Amino acid sequence: MIHPSAVISEKAIIGDNVDIGPFTIIYENVEIHSGTKIEGYCEIGVENNFSEGQPVVIREGSHIRSHSVFYAGSEFGEKLVTGHRVTVREKTVAGSNLQIGTLSDIEGHCQIGDYVRFHSNVHIGQKSKIGNFVWIFPYVVLTNDPHPPSNVSMGVVVEDFAVIATMSVVLPGVRVASHCLIGAHALVAKDTESHKVYVGNPAKFVCPTNKIKLQDGSGQSAYPWIHHFTRGYPKSVVEQWFDEADKDKV
Amino acid sequence: MIHPSAVISEKAIIGDNVDIGPFTIIYENVEIHSGTKIEGYCEIGVENNFSEGQPVVIREGSHIRSHSVFYAGSEFGEKLVTGHRVTVREKTVAGSNLQIGTLSDIEGHCQIGDYVRFHSNVHIGQKSKIGNFVWIFPYVVLTNDPHPPSNVSMGVVVEDFAVIATMSVVLPGVRVASHCLIGAHALVAKDTESHKVYVGNPAKFVCPTNKIKLQDGSGQSAYPWIHHFTRGYPKSVVEQWFDEADKDKV
Amino acid sequence: MIHPSAVISEKAIIGDNVDIGPFTIIYENVEIHSGTKIEGYCEIGVENNFSEGQPVVIREGSHIRSHSVFYAGSEFGEKLVTGHRVTVREKTVAGSNLQIGTLSDIEGHCQIGDYVRFHSNVHIGQKSKIGNFVWIFPYVVLTNDPHPPSNVSMGVVVEDFAVIATMSVVLPGVRVASHCLIGAHALVAKDTESHKVYVGNPAKFVCPTNKIKLQDGSGQSAYPWIHHFTRGYPKSVVEQWFDEADKDKV
Repeated sequence: MIHPSAVISEKAIIGDNVDIGPFTIIYENVEIHSGTKIEGYCEIGVENNFSEGQPVVIREGSHIRSHSVFYAGSEFGEKLVTGHRVTVREKTVAGSNLQIGTLSDIEGHCQIGDYVRFHSNVHIGQKSKIGNFVWIFPYVVLTNDPHPPSNVSMGVVVEDFAVIATMSVVLPGVRVASHCLIGAHALVAKDTESHKVYVGNPAKFVCPTNKIKLQDGSGQSAYPWIHHFTRGYPKSVVEQWFDEADKDKV
Repeated sequence: MIHPSAVISEKAIIGDNVDIGPFTIIYENVEIHSGTKIEGYCEIGVENNFSEGQPVVIREGSHIRSHSVFYAGSEFGEKLVTGHRVTVREKTVAGSNLQIGTLSDIEGHCQIGDYVRFHSNVHIGQKSKIGNFVWIFPYVVLTNDPHPPSNVSMGVVVEDFAVIATMSVVLPGVRVASHCLIGAHALVAKDTESHKVYVGNPAKFVCPTNKIKLQDGSGQSAYPWIHHFTRGYPKSVVEQWFDEADKDKV
Repeated sequence: MIHPSAVISEKAIIGDNVDIGPFTIIYENVEIHSGTKIEGYCEIGVENNFSEGQPVVIREGSHIRSHSVFYAGSEFGEKLVTGHRVTVREKTVAGSNLQIGTLSDIEGHCQIGDYVRFHSNVHIGQKSKIGNFVWIFPYVVLTNDPHPPSNVSMGVVVEDFAVIATMSVVLPGVRVASHCLIGAHALVAKDTESHKVYVGNPAKFVCPTNKIKLQDGSGQSAYPWIHHFTRGYPKSVVEQWFDEADKDKV
């Protein structure tokens, strides 16, 4: 259902079974695929000088919560889910099942894999490249300018399954390796190695991730997290993880 | 007065002398008591899977500023005051005279006492337990997952009169004791003791709070803060503080 | 063009060629000068106890993006540009060509010079004094209370051309000197000296700013940044920088 107070361009392409909430504005360079829900007070398809007439494409089964702003010129795989007050700028190219928490700000000109989870109030700088199954927690910032202000832009790379905890900053051009854990309130100034934990300001290596034990009485390692945390991932995805984990003997 | 552009469910319970601003949406599981003002662009009573058909209850004399989102399934004592763009999720149970600053995000499933002050852009994780007369300053995050992502959730405890300064993170399960001061930009990784100051990353004990002198020329100790800062608290509350302070000889 | 869904006070003073977007509210103590664009869902001229009947003055050629809230009692030079969801409180007095990024929160009772750039999610405490050509990056907080909560308020001073990188906190009353660079995730607890770099928690002197080389292969110093970064500044302003730089031999 499209609420009568919504302001919708005639040129926007809107699929079947799309819900659009009160006071939402849909501009002309927009494709919203079937089964998607856009809540109230959203703006979808804002144009700027960088969107170059390209549409924003929101695929099947997505859910954008209220007060969010999406620019034209970005595309997302199916089942995008956002919190409230999300901002996503142009030239964001994201895989399927992306979750973007309340107040997060994706600055655009970035790549994001499948099943990535941004918690609330995450800031993804331009030129970031984020793999699959990555977790980024509240108030994390991925930066890009090594000596601000300048015309040099070096995006952060975050590899598959990496976890960056609350209020950490990753400096420009730094690679956060696969299955890493960056502890809360860290400043990551150098590339990290896979399956290792880094904490502090500046962040330093602490231990392999598998030394961290689950605080649930099981005595099991907390990492790789895929061994105990599968909520929200389809069975087929989880099976694929275990197949790969077997191969890697992690 | 209810603005004609507001969208109000017939099932919502709305008391006398309630103001509702332009473009605000009031859903059905909502009780707004008398003398309350809800500004424009707010959503009150958003349902999700966790609100379980319970209402959000906003009691007498409250003031919710524009662009705020409150979920169903929470309740607040009288005289709740918020800034703009506040998000409050389900199963938040708060006492009276709570203030929530602009952009703050209360994740729900938490307990909050009386006369608590959250400044701007505070993030309160699920399972947090916050006492009475607590102050939390901008960009503070109370976390809850000791090894993210996981199914273990250990809320932070903040006791009465504690103060957490700007951009500090409190790690999961940590207790911030009564009358503590956590300095700005700290990472609190261990339980603290009452009436003590902690700063740094990780936060370390510095001195008893009464060693910090007011920078107003008086030579007086800055803590306990109740000895010099009473703005916004009723006389009866302040008298109660002093009675208790006399007993404790703080 | 003024969108028909906008709610505009008859007492507001609105110049020629002003665009006002859908669902925006313009209150009575407002002056919007010619050639300005106010996007949707904004509130301009919110009154509170401190705005004292003074108007908010938005001068020629300004652009305020959607979901922003400006209080009455502030004034800005020409060509103010904001991101989305900006909050600006009363008694903010700013020069021309101010840019305020998405989600930034200017607490009011502050002075801001010309050509200042606030990136996203910056928090400017009351009593701050910010010079000309200053850059402040995401999640930076300028504080003001030396022993919160108290009635003492000591604003931060940021001098001309200074740069404060992502997620740094400046403590109350601290002076960030001209042409300084404060690195990311720093806690600035003491006054700094001009043309020097400070990093860490607490922030310590590292080197003169001109020791930092541009990572563009040129071998040139990255600071003073005015020697290589002039995007968005008029030619006349840049020429003035160079004249002064010649004089100072920086």
